[in-house]
Amino acid sequence: MKYTAHINVMPLKELLDPQGKAVNNSLHNLGLNGVSDVRIGKCIAMHIDAANKEAAENIAREACKKLLANPVMEAFDYTITEG
Amino acid sequence: MKYTAHINVMPLKELLDPQGKAVNNSLHNLGLNGVSDVRIGKCIAMHIDAANKEAAENIAREACKKLLANPVMEAFDYTITEG
Repeated sequence: MKYTAHINVMPLKELLDPQGKAVNNSLHNLGLNGVSDVRIGKCIAMHIDAANKEAAENIAREACKKLLANPVMEAFDYTITEG
Repeated sequence: MKYTAHINVMPLKELLDPQGKAVNNSLHNLGLNGVSDVRIGKCIAMHIDAANKEAAENIAREACKKLLANPVMEAFDYTITEG
């Protein structure tokens, strides 16, 4: 069965996020002053062929652990939908 | 009032995603063969101080249009939650 995984890989909250700080300052310069605590990460979408939803979740978790997320600096979460 | 915006900026579907292809191949090399159509984008989280949810949505949309998403190559979507 075909599933779609949406994975978000974000820097750990306790780490400094220079990229996020730079975007935060740029948004203020563009007049969007209500914005704060900007953090930037990776968003990964993929199709997963699996027997059931649980198997698809296992594949998504494996993909994060083996390749997509660096556990020292990043945390990941994912949602799996059918189709 | 404080809101949290989660913004996903992904490459347009009709565009080639070399980064996604590279990750797709790497995942296959790691034995995760059920994976296909990998696409990589940006995931941006931020706090927004706004009068109400609609105002927070406007700020998130403005941030995407002015800075975070390149309309020629990328599409964005966002979710706004309280707190």
